[in-house]
Amino acid sequence: MKLRSLAMAVAMSAGASGLLLVSSIDNTAQAQETFEWKMVTSWPKNFPGVGQGPERLAKLVDEMSDGRLTIEVFGAGQLVPGFEVFDAVSGGTAELGHSASYYWKGKAPAAQFFAAVPFGMNAQEMNAWLHHGGGLELWNELYDDFGVDVMAAGASGVQMGGWYNKEINSVDDLDGLKMRMPGLGGEVMNRMGVAIVNMPGGEIFTSLQSGAIDATEWIGPYNDLAFGLHQAAEYYYYPGWHEPTVMFEAIVNEEAMAGLPADLQAILRTAVRDVNADVLDEYTARNNDALETLVNEHEVELRRLPADVLAQAKEHSADVVAELAESSEMAQKIYDSYEAFQDKVVNYHAISEQAYYNARNPGGDTTSE
Amino acid sequence: MKLRSLAMAVAMSAGASGLLLVSSIDNTAQAQETFEWKMVTSWPKNFPGVGQGPERLAKLVDEMSDGRLTIEVFGAGQLVPGFEVFDAVSGGTAELGHSASYYWKGKAPAAQFFAAVPFGMNAQEMNAWLHHGGGLELWNELYDDFGVDVMAAGASGVQMGGWYNKEINSVDDLDGLKMRMPGLGGEVMNRMGVAIVNMPGGEIFTSLQSGAIDATEWIGPYNDLAFGLHQAAEYYYYPGWHEPTVMFEAIVNEEAMAGLPADLQAILRTAVRDVNADVLDEYTARNNDALETLVNEHEVELRRLPADVLAQAKEHSADVVAELAESSEMAQKIYDSYEAFQDKVVNYHAISEQAYYNARNPGGDTTSE
Repeated sequence: MKLRSLAMAVAMSAGASGLLLVSSIDNTAQAQETFEWKMVTSWPKNFPGVGQGPERLAKLVDEMSDGRLTIEVFGAGQLVPGFEVFDAVSGGTAELGHSASYYWKGKAPAAQFFAAVPFGMNAQEMNAWLHHGGGLELWNELYDDFGVDVMAAGASGVQMGGWYNKEINSVDDLDGLKMRMPGLGGEVMNRMGVAIVNMPGGEIFTSLQSGAIDATEWIGPYNDLAFGLHQAAEYYYYPGWHEPTVMFEAIVNEEAMAGLPADLQAILRTAVRDVNADVLDEYTARNNDALETLVNEHEVELRRLPADVLAQAKEHSADVVAELAESSEMAQKIYDSYEAFQDKVVNYHAISEQAYYNARNPGGDTTSE
Repeated sequence: MKLRSLAMAVAMSAGASGLLLVSSIDNTAQAQETFEWKMVTSWPKNFPGVGQGPERLAKLVDEMSDGRLTIEVFGAGQLVPGFEVFDAVSGGTAELGHSASYYWKGKAPAAQFFAAVPFGMNAQEMNAWLHHGGGLELWNELYDDFGVDVMAAGASGVQMGGWYNKEINSVDDLDGLKMRMPGLGGEVMNRMGVAIVNMPGGEIFTSLQSGAIDATEWIGPYNDLAFGLHQAAEYYYYPGWHEPTVMFEAIVNEEAMAGLPADLQAILRTAVRDVNADVLDEYTARNNDALETLVNEHEVELRRLPADVLAQAKEHSADVVAELAESSEMAQKIYDSYEAFQDKVVNYHAISEQAYYNARNPGGDTTSE
């Protein structure tokens, strides 16, 4: 409307040059242009939880833009494989992607800081760091070399520690255990004597059932129940110290973004911020229900990881994360910002969220037991 | 664009009746109409934290609508007093309002469930209940009689327990204490022997300094520091069991909302959802810094409320909240939904967020000390 008003004002102005008039009309035309975008994702189409984020994004953007920007969502493998989402967006095969940054550690190891850090920040803390602590600017600086803009686009919340077919009573019980745990958490477990086995999601259930692996982590009650993991393992351990949340990401081809009029850019950014919140809200609500089903209907045995396992995992995590920071100047810069924010938020949440959880539910969980 | 395309298609269609053509053009014209709205708030203009929410909302809506919907934000008292925001929106003096629902307990006592419940749900849990547990639908049902739509529009996070000029070592120390604590929390304190004193925010500092009151709660480190409360009290107690978060609200006059084209309605709703997340993110980040300043620069003494105070407050809270539920059929319906959701999320967060906080920071806070 601003551009349209300008064009009309110019048209009505007696002294307007023909050149200026044409230029204004061109701008008006561009503001009304329609865009049909593709969004590639690392999840099966409509996957419970995280897979709902891209669908919601497409719907919101369509509604807000009155159809001027439409987004077609592709599940993993439909347009490109799940692990090629970043390349597809960087190269312009798709304008948008939905994924998690730890998948790109081969391109930029520091990307892992924005997905999940063992003993790092949870969803509420990550969101505060990203949006009011300088985190998002660093994330964009990291992806800038690849021609990609990035926004936070969903969180899982604190994940579960994993499914085990062996009871873990101390660190000694981890020795020689064959477990599937990717990323930084896997490296930590490896230093505690666990043999880390990598495999695609589709092979987990069978491997656990056959005894090819003794344990696996996946996500949380909602996705784990859907995956049927309770049928293949005896114990369900918590908490997921290795993934205090996974932050998901929406990535945008920079040139495609720059080609959008300012109102559609704002619509896209705000829709992503909505999705960022909504994915966590849905996970929280559905995890509640799934946990109840797992415990009451399927009689799953919940176990807290022993105190010495948690304490040693915390020590090794500090080492693993510090080593990641040393991988490049940019990694060090991100680590410094992340750690400084975490130090403060741990202190603040100690007297707010943490103290409140413990006041409301004193017997719920204590590490001193 | 959809309406525009339709109008053009109709115009180009040889068989189109004049009536249909005119109707389509009218729709197109309406889709391009501009709207200038007023937003009244219960906070001073640009108040730190919560007062940033309305400003952000206005900016986002302006950008996304390309100026078709503009929102002028009024601080408390600029157009209507802070406690008349609901009436102003209900009556159409302003199209939009930003406030907190416990201020409307005189109109609908059940409104308090959507702002802050002693020993109730924190921000992450409230958001899950509101957006994926049926809470928002109930909130709208409650406000329906007043011609007002409502959305969640910010959260404070777990608040602080309050500023005290007397050391509290057990419930006995509360007896006869003069304290400013509004709402359900005040009622709970009253049952523990505290004399509750009501006063406007502007009188708190002087009353605390002069000894007219012995204690007060306010919000959290960020707002409390700005208010200078550390200059008037000796001890800073935690956690804020009485307000595990305050949820703020955006209220919209229903007729005004219905008068917006669908794309502007979607833009408004999505902008509010962004603001809802952003206010909490900002509070988390700024509270970190403010706490550091309070403790390191102003040498404020942090104290945890004694275990017996927390335990008795929890018992009384259950009574007070159950009594509120009995105030009307609608209150009971909201309470049932709230409680059912809380029961599940307490169990789920016991093994996820709570367990994780305690694993990451074992000495930070335990109720067993």
